[in-house]
Amino acid sequence: MAHGVIRYGSDVVVAVIDPDYAGRSVREVLPYLASDAPIVGTLAEAMRFEPTALLVGIAPAGGALPDEFRAAIAEALRARLEVVSGLHAMLNDDAELAALAREHDSRIWDLRLPPAAPLFSGAAWDVEAKIVLTVGSDAAVGKMTASLELCRASRAQGVEATFVPTGQIGIAIAGWGTAIDRVVSDFAAGAAEQLVLEGERRARDLLWVEGQGGITHPAFAPVTLALLYGSAPDALVLVHNVSRTSIEGYDVPLLSYRALIRTYEGLCAGVKPAPVIGIALNTRDCEPAHAAAEIARAREETGLPCEDVVRNGPDALYAAIAPKIVKTGVLHV
Amino acid sequence: MAHGVIRYGSDVVVAVIDPDYAGRSVREVLPYLASDAPIVGTLAEAMRFEPTALLVGIAPAGGALPDEFRAAIAEALRARLEVVSGLHAMLNDDAELAALAREHDSRIWDLRLPPAAPLFSGAAWDVEAKIVLTVGSDAAVGKMTASLELCRASRAQGVEATFVPTGQIGIAIAGWGTAIDRVVSDFAAGAAEQLVLEGERRARDLLWVEGQGGITHPAFAPVTLALLYGSAPDALVLVHNVSRTSIEGYDVPLLSYRALIRTYEGLCAGVKPAPVIGIALNTRDCEPAHAAAEIARAREETGLPCEDVVRNGPDALYAAIAPKIVKTGVLHV
Repeated sequence: MAHGVIRYGSDVVVAVIDPDYAGRSVREVLPYLASDAPIVGTLAEAMRFEPTALLVGIAPAGGALPDEFRAAIAEALRARLEVVSGLHAMLNDDAELAALAREHDSRIWDLRLPPAAPLFSGAAWDVEAKIVLTVGSDAAVGKMTASLELCRASRAQGVEATFVPTGQIGIAIAGWGTAIDRVVSDFAAGAAEQLVLEGERRARDLLWVEGQGGITHPAFAPVTLALLYGSAPDALVLVHNVSRTSIEGYDVPLLSYRALIRTYEGLCAGVKPAPVIGIALNTRDCEPAHAAAEIARAREETGLPCEDVVRNGPDALYAAIAPKIVKTGVLHV
Repeated sequence: MAHGVIRYGSDVVVAVIDPDYAGRSVREVLPYLASDAPIVGTLAEAMRFEPTALLVGIAPAGGALPDEFRAAIAEALRARLEVVSGLHAMLNDDAELAALAREHDSRIWDLRLPPAAPLFSGAAWDVEAKIVLTVGSDAAVGKMTASLELCRASRAQGVEATFVPTGQIGIAIAGWGTAIDRVVSDFAAGAAEQLVLEGERRARDLLWVEGQGGITHPAFAPVTLALLYGSAPDALVLVHNVSRTSIEGYDVPLLSYRALIRTYEGLCAGVKPAPVIGIALNTRDCEPAHAAAEIARAREETGLPCEDVVRNGPDALYAAIAPKIVKTGVLHV
């Protein structure tokens, strides 16, 4: 979560609290984030960089608040910082923290608190902006990053496009959105539908919807499917981390590229057809030659355009899929 | 909902309130329910049959409380009846009704209020009882009924079996369970897993898990998938209402039998393989000859055993799938 907000957030990260790396800069520890924010050991030290908010920069499975974060959150509220959290555990429901926020006139923003959502109505099928959803081989493989990078590339080409946030990190980055994984199951597709309706009000041409989970993820697949139907995509971009061979945390092997494409396209075919038009490959943990080989292999196995949109930038993949988008009627620009 | 509880509930329905049919009996209006309960126009009339509870006998999409039910619910609470509701709208959260319940020492049982559920852990994969899940072409085609009828047939053969309720009607019937559609998306598969763990404590041999929704239902499919992965079935029974050609309420045509089987088995194959071993066909709206033709057609198109377990009873279908269950290692008895 911290990485995503440092790299893509609209707010500036002035300091990072992490005792294990205190004294270094973000760039020294994680060069790809390209941030010179200092890393400090405590909130007290961070205060001299004049923050206005404390972001709880983690997104653990299950979403409980780790005990060791409690003292710093309390301290931040006393210092009148806004506290921003993407945990499932709602900090506003925590009696101690909520009382501190009231007492010190500070604010807790629980990113994951969903609005009341209606049932899916079918209104998303009438959205005129074209909708591209990222779908993955697993959770946390780079779907949000791919959507953000491709959105940036499309805007650079003059397309009126927006990123549509569907999880707590995307919401922290973009300042709006709904954490679909927090919505009551019956209304998850309806909440996704509301997001593309809102997206169309923000950008006329093209919506890049952040995907979630993976279709064979034993815990998160329902959220994946809520987005696949609820956001009513016209096209899909497949995202995979080449270092991953099984669903993280479960003894479930990942599907092959072709099986993933067949599964996602097969489900969409029954409701609103959407082809996979390209692959965004995450080769973060690879040497350059290995990364190039993995990209070549994905292209060969699928016949689709494929790039690592972080390593190589998003322009090449966007250029490769844009004609396909036009061809399949996906984009009117 | 009323039909399900009248037919299968462990509690006796002493009267039905329905002004449109007042003065007749349930059997006169709906012969297949085989109930002689009287239908009356008001709660006051119903009171002479000495009810102990008022069941809100509807399950509308979206689950809001219809205004015209409010007065009767308030009256029931004043009369110290328990009020049982499967709506999404939690009656315990309704200030007026909750106050009445407190004042008159009566109780509101919101069937859909889910327990706190953990993430799916994989513990369901180790359940030794065999697990059979009903899956459907759409919502409300008869999955609960098929699970209940097949459970009854297996018990008649001496199998230690239980029905595992996953929706508000099943919960009202069996007195336990979780409405998976009410669980926060991230935890829906985890809640389904908890149900089969509880099911195994209740019956050693065989769990008949009530399915929900349909895999191409644009609103409810996430719940379907949460059960498909979370309840970790060893085998599936496909359920379809032959009078249905599209998803109820949506312009989405139903999949063919073969496409449904391919889709459900394909998704399971990626996580825990489960074959479709039989078809429970709902021919309620058909003349006998038409019903027989539809059953024959389903058998021919799929090569699977197929019956209407209400029209013809569950024993034939159970007898047909039991050897298959043994053959695929699904049942140790």
